[in-house]
Amino acid sequence: MMTVALDVMSGDDSPRSRIRAAVRALDRFNSLHLQLVGDQPLIEDYLSDMECTDRSRISLIHANKTVTMHDKPSLALRGKKDSSMWKVLELVAKNEAQACVSAGNTGALMAMGRYVLKTFAGIDRPAIAASVPTSTGSALLMDMGANVDCTSMHLYQFAIMGAQLASSVYGVESPRVGLLNIGTEEMKGNEQVRLAHHLLQEKLGAQQGLEYIGFIEGHDIFSGSADVIVCDGFVGNVALKTGEGVASLIRDGLKSIFQRSLLNRFLYFLISPLLREFNRKIDPVLHNGASLLGLQGIVIKSHGGADEKGFYRAICQAVKEAEYEVPVRIAREVEERLL
Amino acid sequence: MMTVALDVMSGDDSPRSRIRAAVRALDRFNSLHLQLVGDQPLIEDYLSDMECTDRSRISLIHANKTVTMHDKPSLALRGKKDSSMWKVLELVAKNEAQACVSAGNTGALMAMGRYVLKTFAGIDRPAIAASVPTSTGSALLMDMGANVDCTSMHLYQFAIMGAQLASSVYGVESPRVGLLNIGTEEMKGNEQVRLAHHLLQEKLGAQQGLEYIGFIEGHDIFSGSADVIVCDGFVGNVALKTGEGVASLIRDGLKSIFQRSLLNRFLYFLISPLLREFNRKIDPVLHNGASLLGLQGIVIKSHGGADEKGFYRAICQAVKEAEYEVPVRIAREVEERLL
Repeated sequence: MMTVALDVMSGDDSPRSRIRAAVRALDRFNSLHLQLVGDQPLIEDYLSDMECTDRSRISLIHANKTVTMHDKPSLALRGKKDSSMWKVLELVAKNEAQACVSAGNTGALMAMGRYVLKTFAGIDRPAIAASVPTSTGSALLMDMGANVDCTSMHLYQFAIMGAQLASSVYGVESPRVGLLNIGTEEMKGNEQVRLAHHLLQEKLGAQQGLEYIGFIEGHDIFSGSADVIVCDGFVGNVALKTGEGVASLIRDGLKSIFQRSLLNRFLYFLISPLLREFNRKIDPVLHNGASLLGLQGIVIKSHGGADEKGFYRAICQAVKEAEYEVPVRIAREVEERLL
Repeated sequence: MMTVALDVMSGDDSPRSRIRAAVRALDRFNSLHLQLVGDQPLIEDYLSDMECTDRSRISLIHANKTVTMHDKPSLALRGKKDSSMWKVLELVAKNEAQACVSAGNTGALMAMGRYVLKTFAGIDRPAIAASVPTSTGSALLMDMGANVDCTSMHLYQFAIMGAQLASSVYGVESPRVGLLNIGTEEMKGNEQVRLAHHLLQEKLGAQQGLEYIGFIEGHDIFSGSADVIVCDGFVGNVALKTGEGVASLIRDGLKSIFQRSLLNRFLYFLISPLLREFNRKIDPVLHNGASLLGLQGIVIKSHGGADEKGFYRAICQAVKEAEYEVPVRIAREVEERLL
């Protein structure tokens, strides 16, 4: 039996959609138990409307407050200890759940996560690792915005943690770790990246279990040339959102051309099954559920705007990380390589 | 009569392709004179093979050396004063040319540009502004990689210079200037970006001629919500290359689906005119030719890998900037707003 705690009040979509995703996850995983945390009467109300094969694998935990997307992290940390976000983290800290999922305010989740769960000794700051589609499958990009200023040592820690996630949950035998830079020559980039490069070369060069492949550039993120791409949170966040922006530009641009005339619309109708097939491959929903790595417990951050399908994907990510006991693996790596 | 100096030895494509682009530009602009700088016997040899309507508008200037893509900028600066790159800059400095174009090593071009042409008083460092396609046309993204570490004052200077380029060459009446960040709330981002935000709000809030629209995120770069997007060179370079990476991922992914079967290939044949039309809109070649702003002269950096069409586009950019006397406009703005 595995237990995952869900912050069903979080993000932009309704609690009803979060609960539907939960019911769907119970259908998929027979030995999964879910704790739905939030406004209990509301959750009961929604649940009574839904068809749920096994209600016994759901427990409800009441929380008075909700952390909103506009809450300042430091204020949420001080003032919202009875929020659904705080409570799911607490359930993991008390070992009553093996993982938790929230679609809420990233900054607040980071701040509360650090306070409630603590980072491992040797890890200064947790980082957010997101899965991105590549031409050959997927890659992990980290940090996604939790740490806007990083030292070279932070980037080194991200590499260690990301490689563990890639080799366990994503089944990559010897993950190729690349450091995001603005060129591949030694002299390129800022000081922090150049220092991190030397650190990674020196410490990971001969190590087994992962392969440091050096500097990579923006266009390599999606090419499949690396399994883990390390950068600071500012750069990672801009890169991910820029990628989404280009995908929208292309999608909308094609759509407008294909809607211009009756003939074009007919052509669109003919190719739409192929477009759907392609969209499924790069659909960000299928990559929803970023991991907060470095904490002494599994915390999955769903996109705030994720719908039922997206939140379901985030729950699946939590289940997988719990199965592989990712924090135990990271703790072991950190002890070996960083302490 | 307007004169533009071309470094025909630069970049990854052959001098022959650079010279072809030059001949094409002469056909388009009747009052354009071009100085082809590089290995004179080689250029003469290539020219004799080509059909050129008006050979009298071409002059050849010999240069012994070529700056390679792997040259360290500081070494190129000291050791390659007789290179084609140095010479085109010198022609602009001596006012024998109104603009120059090179597809060579960006770092070396920046270093030589600063040395030969100097920046305007009030501008600490030149910045590279690149045009990117958006859903409504194009936008300027700067800096593209010349300045990996920027203070808030640098970002402010970029905003001033980018707005001048947008309002002159790109004809945007009151350019909307956005500051690239990882969120739109005041508290988001790193210190440098938050300070720049206050500086831009305070100094540009009530000014006419441009509109500061505050923080924007990665997905806004291509949405058309800003005309000038300001960021440090590390972030700008990663964003641009990430965008190219996503475009490739989508292009290659669609191609592989459409080539899977005979039926799919037939469908592809049917829609290919529409795809070509769309590609023309977002083709990076049509946006080739980035501007080094802040120098006392016009320097256009072509992509190293640009082909004839791309280099031709970069020459056109040089002509337009010379027509609008962009450096004069920037000097005036800098004097008004920065000194």
